[in-house]
Amino acid sequence: MLKVPEHQVAGHLAIDGKLGPLVDDSGRFYKPLQGDGRGNKELAFYESFSSDTRVPDHIRKYFPVCYGSQLLEASNGSGLLHHLVLQDIVSSYRNPSIMDVKIGSRTWYPEASDNYIQKCLEKDRRTTTVSLGFRIAGLQLYEGKESGYWRPGRKEVQSFTVYNVRSILRRFVSSNSSIGNENSDCSFAPSIYGGSAGILEQLLELKAWFEDQTIYHFHSCSLLILFDKESVSKGSAPVPAIKLIDFAHVVEGKGVIDHNFLGGLCSLIKFVSEVLSDSKESSIKDCVESEKPGICTDNGNCQ
Amino acid sequence: MLKVPEHQVAGHLAIDGKLGPLVDDSGRFYKPLQGDGRGNKELAFYESFSSDTRVPDHIRKYFPVCYGSQLLEASNGSGLLHHLVLQDIVSSYRNPSIMDVKIGSRTWYPEASDNYIQKCLEKDRRTTTVSLGFRIAGLQLYEGKESGYWRPGRKEVQSFTVYNVRSILRRFVSSNSSIGNENSDCSFAPSIYGGSAGILEQLLELKAWFEDQTIYHFHSCSLLILFDKESVSKGSAPVPAIKLIDFAHVVEGKGVIDHNFLGGLCSLIKFVSEVLSDSKESSIKDCVESEKPGICTDNGNCQ
Repeated sequence: MLKVPEHQVAGHLAIDGKLGPLVDDSGRFYKPLQGDGRGNKELAFYESFSSDTRVPDHIRKYFPVCYGSQLLEASNGSGLLHHLVLQDIVSSYRNPSIMDVKIGSRTWYPEASDNYIQKCLEKDRRTTTVSLGFRIAGLQLYEGKESGYWRPGRKEVQSFTVYNVRSILRRFVSSNSSIGNENSDCSFAPSIYGGSAGILEQLLELKAWFEDQTIYHFHSCSLLILFDKESVSKGSAPVPAIKLIDFAHVVEGKGVIDHNFLGGLCSLIKFVSEVLSDSKESSIKDCVESEKPGICTDNGNCQ
Repeated sequence: MLKVPEHQVAGHLAIDGKLGPLVDDSGRFYKPLQGDGRGNKELAFYESFSSDTRVPDHIRKYFPVCYGSQLLEASNGSGLLHHLVLQDIVSSYRNPSIMDVKIGSRTWYPEASDNYIQKCLEKDRRTTTVSLGFRIAGLQLYEGKESGYWRPGRKEVQSFTVYNVRSILRRFVSSNSSIGNENSDCSFAPSIYGGSAGILEQLLELKAWFEDQTIYHFHSCSLLILFDKESVSKGSAPVPAIKLIDFAHVVEGKGVIDHNFLGGLCSLIKFVSEVLSDSKESSIKDCVESEKPGICTDNGNCQ
């Protein structure tokens, strides 16, 4: 019944006899607890988070539901291993486009060892983490029935520059995405990034919580942006969503806000807002050029 | 006519034959251009900033006015030296209480040399820069006619912990400040941190600009919080103010927000908000205990 996730865009994959997460058909995601303590730290985070009454209900939807842990045959054939049992957040999507964005301008935490800090710092400087306050850690983009998914390899993802990130955030919501250049039309931006239930509003709701919460500091945590182009264009479920994942390096906030996460989140918000406002401007331009009244609806159509 | 500034709380002091800034009686502050290029970088920043029409007028008040540069006798007797001529922002205050807060969870910039980064990182980890997203770089607190100023030495300031910072932000606005413990009454908080023209509102206005501006990244820049307790209690000028200073490490934003500064600023805002809301709660408690109706005005008095 258990199988390798079809839509995992970052992290260890359960292929070629390696250890990685598994999914079932009932919408659950099984993540092996890594032996170096990280797995137990992530489990401890989920347990603490689930029972913490200080976390408002409207924020919980940005986290996968956790169903505890379970002993399962590991994907690498090493025998029984404890797995974290989580909600499989992509299971309701048919052809999900997914971006995994690691948030923060540093991925290390103050209490870490010098060696660990130097290793993270080196990678943070090599990627866009330091310059942008976030980096893309993986993505897949559904381009259509014929071309299928665009899924850049790990090396390509790790070499993304600021320019690439800006361009990918446009390409991600374009109907001519396979071109992958500055001529991306961003025609899906109003319905995916925009609107009262769109990605931007969700990011802003999360931001408001991070301006206030001093419970947790989320180091090296990822924010997933996911949606299904077809259901978006039909106006049907599932809707575009953001989810936080990977909590092996969460530490106590001790009364201080997570300024590292918040700064990176604000930087991502600025990028997404720009794609959205550019797309609105070009919609107005299109309306004017087509000699219709220059008023555009929220989903970018002329009225 | 030139003299050593009376109220400089951080940076190089023009005493004991050393090089440092000077002030005159007409409200100007003369900062020697350091020979290693930092002085010229700061002058270049002021020139660029002054003429940049993208900077809104309501943001300019948070920066000292710059009057160009001038050749002057250096304070260390080394002869004529170029000085940056700035507005002396404390000249209108009689007994200024001042806090110099270096904003950001890193003080180094991505383009810096490895050596420079390691040196800054080491200090950022040793102080509250990494944990809080800011550190106090200097302060003076006017305690009254008898006790004068509390002005901790450089070593003491550098050893401030998160606990110390929280306590100092309370002590800073207390009438019983010389006690310097958790019993600080925060009686000045509503009139200094609070109100429509108070420190918190100014910080929030600056924050809104940092969420949007992608022109400059302010590395290792300081935010001064300054006020005069007596004029605040009399409701007379000058009013509490924040000012940004020290721009030798400002670099171009290149279309990205300054997430490092913004994150630290939000962390400072959270600390200041907490002092303010604690002081309001205790005012309500006082009102209730004094059997007056439990309604408190913005300046913390019972109504």
